[in-house]
Order: sequence, then C-alpha cells, then structure tokens
Amino acid sequence: MRLYDLELSGNCYKVRLFAALAGIDLDIVPVDVAGGEHKRPPLLDLNPWGQVPVLVDGDRILRDSQAILVYLAGTHGGEAWWPSAPFQQAEVMQWLSTAANEIQHGPCAARLVDRFGYAIDKADTLAKAARILSLLDAHLATHDWLAARRPTIAECALFPYVALAPEGGIDLAPYAHVRRWIDRVKALPGYRPMPGT
Amino acid sequence: MRLYDLELSGNCYKVRLFAALAGIDLDIVPVDVAGGEHKRPPLLDLNPWGQVPVLVDGDRILRDSQAILVYLAGTHGGEAWWPSAPFQQAEVMQWLSTAANEIQHGPCAARLVDRFGYAIDKADTLAKAARILSLLDAHLATHDWLAARRPTIAECALFPYVALAPEGGIDLAPYAHVRRWIDRVKALPGYRPMPGT
Repeated sequence: MRLYDLELSGNCYKVRLFAALAGIDLDIVPVDVAGGEHKRPPLLDLNPWGQVPVLVDGDRILRDSQAILVYLAGTHGGEAWWPSAPFQQAEVMQWLSTAANEIQHGPCAARLVDRFGYAIDKADTLAKAARILSLLDAHLATHDWLAARRPTIAECALFPYVALAPEGGIDLAPYAHVRRWIDRVKALPGYRPMPGT
Repeated sequence: MRLYDLELSGNCYKVRLFAALAGIDLDIVPVDVAGGEHKRPPLLDLNPWGQVPVLVDGDRILRDSQAILVYLAGTHGGEAWWPSAPFQQAEVMQWLSTAANEIQHGPCAARLVDRFGYAIDKADTLAKAARILSLLDAHLATHDWLAARRPTIAECALFPYVALAPEGGIDLAPYAHVRRWIDRVKALPGYRPMPGT
C-alpha cells in the first residue's frame, strides 16, 4: 500500500500513527506540496480534491484521513481499533466527525495560519478551538479513551491536531485531562511522534 | 428510540430521512431550539455539545448526525445502507467526513446566515460551497450514487444541505449531475421531504 504523504501534515500523520500502532507496513511517498504536486496530475487524478493523504492499495484509491483509518482498521486492525458492534462503532464515529469538523476548523486551522500563513480568520479558529478543547477536556475527565473504553481509530483521528495545537498559538495548560490523554496516547505500544508533537 | 429533533434542521433531517428510507420507527421529540432548550438541562445533560439531533435508545445516547446514521444502519439497515466490507465502508466514510466538514461549512453555513441570521462570513461559505458542489458534480458525472454503487447512508448525510442550498442563496443550476442525483434520492422508496427540499 502506498501513502502519498506530507510529513508536516497532521492529516497524514493520523494515518502514519495508526499504521505504527497497528503494525501496518506502508510505502510512504513524499509529495512536494510546497511545489503544488498535489494540485496537478498525476496526483490530482488520484485525488481530485487536491489534498494529501491519499492511500492507494492496488486499484483501490482513498482520500480523507478518516476514511483511510476506517479502511486500514477494517483490513488490518480489525475489532481492536474499529469495533463492529453498532453502538461502539457509532461512539467512534462521533469522534471521526469531530475530527473532520471541529478539530479541522479549530486547532488545525489555527496552525495553518501560524505555521503556513493561510488566510483564515485566526480569531474564529481560536474560538472554535477553545470550544472543542473544553468539550474534549470534559469528556476526558471521565473517560480514559474517546470511545468504546479502549484506544480506537478515534485517538488517531484527534491526537495529531490536538497535540499540535501549540503550533497554532493555543496553550493546552488549561486542559489537564486533554494533556493526560496526550500522555496516554504517547505511551501506547508502537507510538510514533511527528515533528511538533 | 427517541430522536430529539428540530424540523428545520438539516442535520436532524438526515436521521429522519434515513429512518423513512429504512423503515425505522422513531419517537420524534421536538426541541424548542429558538427558546434554547438544547442549551440547558436536561437536554444539555444528554448532549453537552448543546446541539440536535440527539438519539436515545435505552441507556445509549448519541450526538452527531453521522454517528446516528451509522448506529441506525448497524442496528436496522444492515449491509444495504452501511457496507461492512472495508473498502466500500471507507468509500461511504469519505462522504460522511465530507458531510461533517465541507458541506457543514459550505451550503449548510450559507443557509444558517440567510435563513437564521448567524454571524458567519457569508462570502467564505459561498466559496466553500462552490468548491464542494463542483467536486460533487464531477463525482456524480460518473457515479449514480456517492459510494459502493448503491444508495447508502452517504446519501442521507449529504442530501439535506445540498438540496437546501438554495435557502443559502446558492443556485444549483450549474450542477446538472447534482440535480439529477437529488431527483434520484427523491425517487427512493420511502423518501420523505422536509420543508425547503
């Protein structure tokens, strides 16, 4: 399996992190994002959305980091990381939506402004980040893991941009339960960091 | 099963639409959103995020419309609406992420401005809507359905805010394939409209 990858992308790191935790061997293909390689063929043919990560497994092509997590868990991690029981699966799904929505438009977007100069309303990203980090902290006050009482792909979907929040000017000091969860994720067997975490 | 519901919410309609298509009986509980009922107990205890929909099934409580779709499909719709094969499931998941991210912050947000007076940057919502509707149109030019070559919960996740886009000042005329897909969804057995679609 080939992963079209950018080392500094938290969305790509979601996939690299899960592969490390689940012992999945990926052929990492670095993409020249600064040079716009993802915005023109042949990469644009693989993913018309012009984004990384992209996973290619034979004739199967997937965009979207959450979808790639679901695929890799389904083919390799199985029940441990992506429960098949409907309620547990839906619990994980709640957090996959959170990763795609509130995390993407909160801490991830704040980092895009500070680290890469994106023209996004910084105050709006900080307000969104404060809201989601407060909700996350309250949840983690009574749960060791996001869903299903064990580490799942929900951890891989949220960890990168939460751990990278300081690169967007967000102080994690007020969120003690989030910080302890970050430590628990870092202690998982096979854990692999990325620059900034 | 109780669905805490707002008739004019597209996120709630995702769930009502799937229940209608899959023949699932829900006890609909209207929430006084204008009066802030979702922002205080007892509803805030059910969903600390202060949002509808919320699904309650015995002692199981779920927020997030995509997660509720996964749960209802897993318990009632089965393989037809939410494939268990990893690649097909991941194909559906791509669109559940799209619903939570690009659709929520594009056509849904544009409607929140025009219809409900939300203080969101309207130009930004229109730019995001134009991008996602173009990508969706290109996909639907070669696919009758979003994923897995059949109607799935991906249809229920995207249909509401795409069909409601004109309420956010977005003209669907340029998106011929999207309009034909809307017609296909409306022709599904059991289809149920909401005001504005």
